[in-house]
Amino acid sequence: MPGFSNVVEKSVQAMSIKYNNLVYDMKRSGTEVIVLSLGEAYFDIPLCPMDDLPFPAIYHYSHSRGVFELRQKICEYYARQFGVTIDPETEIIVTAGSKAAIHFSMMSVLNPGDEVITQEPTWVSYPEQIKLCYGTPVQIPYYESVYDFEKYLTDKTKMIILNNPHNPRGQVLSKQELQYLMGLAKRNDIYLLSDEAYSDFLVGEKFYSLGLFDREKSHIIVCNSISKNFGISGWRVGYVFTNAELIDQILKVNQHIITCPPTILEWYLVKHYDEIIQITYPQIAAVVNTRKEVAKYMDQIGLSYLPGSATFYFFVSIAPSKLTSEEFCTRLLLDEHISVVPGLGYGMSCDAFVRVSVGTEPIEKIHYGLAKLRELIEKTS
Amino acid sequence: MPGFSNVVEKSVQAMSIKYNNLVYDMKRSGTEVIVLSLGEAYFDIPLCPMDDLPFPAIYHYSHSRGVFELRQKICEYYARQFGVTIDPETEIIVTAGSKAAIHFSMMSVLNPGDEVITQEPTWVSYPEQIKLCYGTPVQIPYYESVYDFEKYLTDKTKMIILNNPHNPRGQVLSKQELQYLMGLAKRNDIYLLSDEAYSDFLVGEKFYSLGLFDREKSHIIVCNSISKNFGISGWRVGYVFTNAELIDQILKVNQHIITCPPTILEWYLVKHYDEIIQITYPQIAAVVNTRKEVAKYMDQIGLSYLPGSATFYFFVSIAPSKLTSEEFCTRLLLDEHISVVPGLGYGMSCDAFVRVSVGTEPIEKIHYGLAKLRELIEKTS
Repeated sequence: MPGFSNVVEKSVQAMSIKYNNLVYDMKRSGTEVIVLSLGEAYFDIPLCPMDDLPFPAIYHYSHSRGVFELRQKICEYYARQFGVTIDPETEIIVTAGSKAAIHFSMMSVLNPGDEVITQEPTWVSYPEQIKLCYGTPVQIPYYESVYDFEKYLTDKTKMIILNNPHNPRGQVLSKQELQYLMGLAKRNDIYLLSDEAYSDFLVGEKFYSLGLFDREKSHIIVCNSISKNFGISGWRVGYVFTNAELIDQILKVNQHIITCPPTILEWYLVKHYDEIIQITYPQIAAVVNTRKEVAKYMDQIGLSYLPGSATFYFFVSIAPSKLTSEEFCTRLLLDEHISVVPGLGYGMSCDAFVRVSVGTEPIEKIHYGLAKLRELIEKTS
Repeated sequence: MPGFSNVVEKSVQAMSIKYNNLVYDMKRSGTEVIVLSLGEAYFDIPLCPMDDLPFPAIYHYSHSRGVFELRQKICEYYARQFGVTIDPETEIIVTAGSKAAIHFSMMSVLNPGDEVITQEPTWVSYPEQIKLCYGTPVQIPYYESVYDFEKYLTDKTKMIILNNPHNPRGQVLSKQELQYLMGLAKRNDIYLLSDEAYSDFLVGEKFYSLGLFDREKSHIIVCNSISKNFGISGWRVGYVFTNAELIDQILKVNQHIITCPPTILEWYLVKHYDEIIQITYPQIAAVVNTRKEVAKYMDQIGLSYLPGSATFYFFVSIAPSKLTSEEFCTRLLLDEHISVVPGLGYGMSCDAFVRVSVGTEPIEKIHYGLAKLRELIEKTS
């Protein structure tokens, strides 16, 4: 057999997906699993009929920037919700999920050897995406603050990725932090890429989109996910907005790899955008409130986690367990049928953590799972 | 603004998409266009209700190899239709369109500087995809035969791409040609990637899948499109099969960029696979027959084209026009509102050609468009 790409061969499976595929396989063979590993929240959303969508347009390619009406909906949403103005004609592309939006953005600005900074816990696919672009990931340990980022900059730094609100910390960046980072980016002429996939997963606090801090969008790239905020992660519809010139670069990549997201889903989202938001918002609030309740429970049973308030994730410490995070998760899955994601997947500084997602199970199962997790820490300390 | 990726900045828009976006824009502003530029055939396919699909699974992520039942359907199809055996567990990934399948396959085997051979007219995205992987496209002029490929091999050659049936030639590779190429690949230890997106677009002749010529799949990668053969190109569902080891590499890429194709569409296709095939096959036959009729018409009015019998494309000569193929197509679009794709997009040897697609317009409009094309050749000779 001829050889493989070195960079792909060295690439590791997304830790979260690896564990979730294990879960699918266990479930398929009839095992019940308490799933605290999924990167999605389960919402109760009806499925509307599709026979009133533009027919037969739903079967055919759409514009490779995305159906125009959907771009308009998204731009209206960012204006209304976050006060950010985006031109639907030139500054946005709808693509097959926010993951693709992020990857195509990286492809469009990185040259081989360019460095990209992320903070740990680093969402599992960022470093792999950077390496697939022949860039170099530079990962800042979890205990550093935003104001420490500057010391990680070199003359090869091309981009800093912000995950805001943060998966799996649950942390939301403040106005001051974002202003500081924007200044840092402009002074050093580098991009800030903000992954805002959890922009709606906040209750009782204000979310500042990075779009507010650079009206020309010369140094910012903002990616977001429709499917995530709508509770339909499996639909894979995301988008990216930045300045028109860079959008034209990303457009070429999108055309050569994807063409367009599925037209039928784009039209469905155009038609039901406001309706779905009305249905999901109370449920988003509920899951964020579940997070608060779970936080209290963890405080009670003596589990600690990195501070945060948004999303439906926790980054939970497994110290002083002697197991690596992978050993820990494998044992929790095989012995107790509880799935969480090993912290190591989020960076070298994170092997004493696991990611716990509270988006898919009822509260009593989450509590049960966390109690078992607590037990396993004790058993293995 | 910080700079862009050099390779993306130098990349060109897919010529076909560029022209089709022009067409979308003209149509949106109310202009009627005869569209002979689309890479799809318009079929009459009903939309079945989706409320009987597994709910709420349709909203969530699926396995990143694709929904297992869909992998089974595809494997059954390749076995029944072409006699090729594929293991649905380990040898196939369903992804967001065959374009992504091809790109992720390239990413998984190419190292920077590796050469990839295609024959012109080369489908517009291959060279750009190769360059996005930091590979080097080597394009063989359209007038060479398969038996001439060997002289283009160097010690950097890693892959030959076959587009079979060929878009836009309409050519189908014979058993002998495929056997020869397979021997060539094995002797030189390189991959043959076969893009079989038009595998069903033949009438009265046998199609040999590359899968028949390498049972171990050690030197072959086969990509195909469900959405294309089903007349639902806008749904973006494709797949790749090869040996399990290479599939595991492609899987990592798929996970980091796409996760999975939209779960709802995967389940829809599982449920309606056989039904849609029954509906589309007569229509595929009809469009291939339209192609035959159009071929006769071109012979009558003195238009020449590269020989072929399959798909719904023609690669039509515009010689002896003095216009470049881009000038020719722009003029045909702006003056006559007829869209075809410039040959130059398919390689340096192809600037005296245009691609004509007969998949979307009624025969009288196709004839009218071709007559106008014929006139423009004369006017500009």
